[in-house]
Amino acid sequence: MRVLVTGADGFLGRGLAARLALAPLPIEKLVLTDRAFAEPALAGVDQSAGDLSDPAFLETLLEPGFDLVFHLASVPGGLAEREQALGQKANLLAPIALATAVAERRPGARFVFASSIGVYGTLGNDAVTIHTRTTPDLTYGAHKLMTEYLLSDMARRGVLSSISLRFPGIVARPQTESGHGSAFMSLLFHRIAAGEAYACPVPASSVCWWVSRRAAVDLLLNAAQLEAGRVTLVQPPALVATTGEVAVAVAHYIGRPANVTWGSDETLRQLFGAMPPLDASEALALGFKADADLETLAKAALSGEP
Amino acid sequence: MRVLVTGADGFLGRGLAARLALAPLPIEKLVLTDRAFAEPALAGVDQSAGDLSDPAFLETLLEPGFDLVFHLASVPGGLAEREQALGQKANLLAPIALATAVAERRPGARFVFASSIGVYGTLGNDAVTIHTRTTPDLTYGAHKLMTEYLLSDMARRGVLSSISLRFPGIVARPQTESGHGSAFMSLLFHRIAAGEAYACPVPASSVCWWVSRRAAVDLLLNAAQLEAGRVTLVQPPALVATTGEVAVAVAHYIGRPANVTWGSDETLRQLFGAMPPLDASEALALGFKADADLETLAKAALSGEP
Repeated sequence: MRVLVTGADGFLGRGLAARLALAPLPIEKLVLTDRAFAEPALAGVDQSAGDLSDPAFLETLLEPGFDLVFHLASVPGGLAEREQALGQKANLLAPIALATAVAERRPGARFVFASSIGVYGTLGNDAVTIHTRTTPDLTYGAHKLMTEYLLSDMARRGVLSSISLRFPGIVARPQTESGHGSAFMSLLFHRIAAGEAYACPVPASSVCWWVSRRAAVDLLLNAAQLEAGRVTLVQPPALVATTGEVAVAVAHYIGRPANVTWGSDETLRQLFGAMPPLDASEALALGFKADADLETLAKAALSGEP
Repeated sequence: MRVLVTGADGFLGRGLAARLALAPLPIEKLVLTDRAFAEPALAGVDQSAGDLSDPAFLETLLEPGFDLVFHLASVPGGLAEREQALGQKANLLAPIALATAVAERRPGARFVFASSIGVYGTLGNDAVTIHTRTTPDLTYGAHKLMTEYLLSDMARRGVLSSISLRFPGIVARPQTESGHGSAFMSLLFHRIAAGEAYACPVPASSVCWWVSRRAAVDLLLNAAQLEAGRVTLVQPPALVATTGEVAVAVAHYIGRPANVTWGSDETLRQLFGAMPPLDASEALALGFKADADLETLAKAALSGEP
């Protein structure tokens, strides 16, 4: 099986690439692509740096024909909102071009798309399911949703075996990454683990959805291995907990008290810290799993292991 | 005000262009575009033939900067399903490129998009409103829906004053037009008016939504004149009636009995002839109007007048 990972130098992409290099799937060829790579490639893995929205690069990249593509590349929400042309190119035009070209070269290829809960827009109080109404209120979510519709239609026609997973923020992202409005969700882990004071911008009562990178990679691998055509759209499970509860769990795991002061940024709280319950029973029935508990989440988020 | 109409040599486009030439709006410059034009331009109107997905053509076309754009150009559903590359270019990539370029040249320009009830996919028995769930089951509907999301997001950001209207089939299309699965809805008018026998592929009990071209043009003009930002998505009203009732109304208007035999094409009936009730109260409150009754519909559909 020939496998392509886009956005492979991103936080999630590096985790997935490392796990794929451990070969949980029978892989004949593994190609990683991103705009640039910080590190040289592992033995037996190809790294190809370039811009997916450049037709010549895409042509060369896809030349081998891939049986399985993980499309993770995207410009984060905050950045996409500020730089609209960049966001449109990376989050809309590139996925359209990529999916179309993958299907042309290898009809029926498996295409796993990292979508986002940003497709829902402002959520009410009801438990979210994959059937919850989608009214994105940021360009990032609108582009992710448009890509989902494209991929579901390609799956219907049988030209691509697509599956889109709506991810919440994944923790703990490196502190150097920027552009994510949900950065506080990751900083909570890093700062407490480092024994530093942290002025969290939202209250301790903010309810977020939490997924470690390890769990997110498991979700992607489960998606890749599901029977083709069984489902094209998944709301994966996540841990639903307050920032305060997570701070306690991190402090407990580290064995050191947390030194967090809680803010009252209502915009951020509305966007990321006012999440309703999550009913992921459909995904659970398909073998998708969240982190087992907050302690497992803290350990996975802080270990740095993929 | 400078006005652009795309798809201006199509059935709806010709009607809109003719009405705009009668100047219901204060127009300084009217430009019509389509891949080709069957007739020379009217005095004072520019016709520009080309492909909207060709960046060089688009650049030249939009050079004047438009305050109001009616985007009607699209490849019909049946054809888009058979020729996927053509459908994607015309129904997805061209609208993205057009809307983006219009907004760049004239931020906040009014952009009226002819969307389709194809965005809903298979409908249940409940009355359809603009809030009905969208699960398109043909590529045409998926592309229209993706474009709606793009335009609504651009409206949210204030870069384009967009409004999308979800049109049902418009009658009576010329008998020469092809690619429309709903062709029977127009042939019903033409054949009865011509005194010819017509083997309608669906039963007389098939419930369709009916809009004459005259009413459709009125809907577009009303959309153009609505206060900007008031609404970005509209399910316009339509007459809801059976094929049998329409045949009777056409025969009555013509003053000659209809010679129609009714078929049992279940696929076509499911797609176009099993429509639920329509609750367009939100659109009615905004001044959008359907044909007054079936007699008015028959007259408008057969007169050929815009």
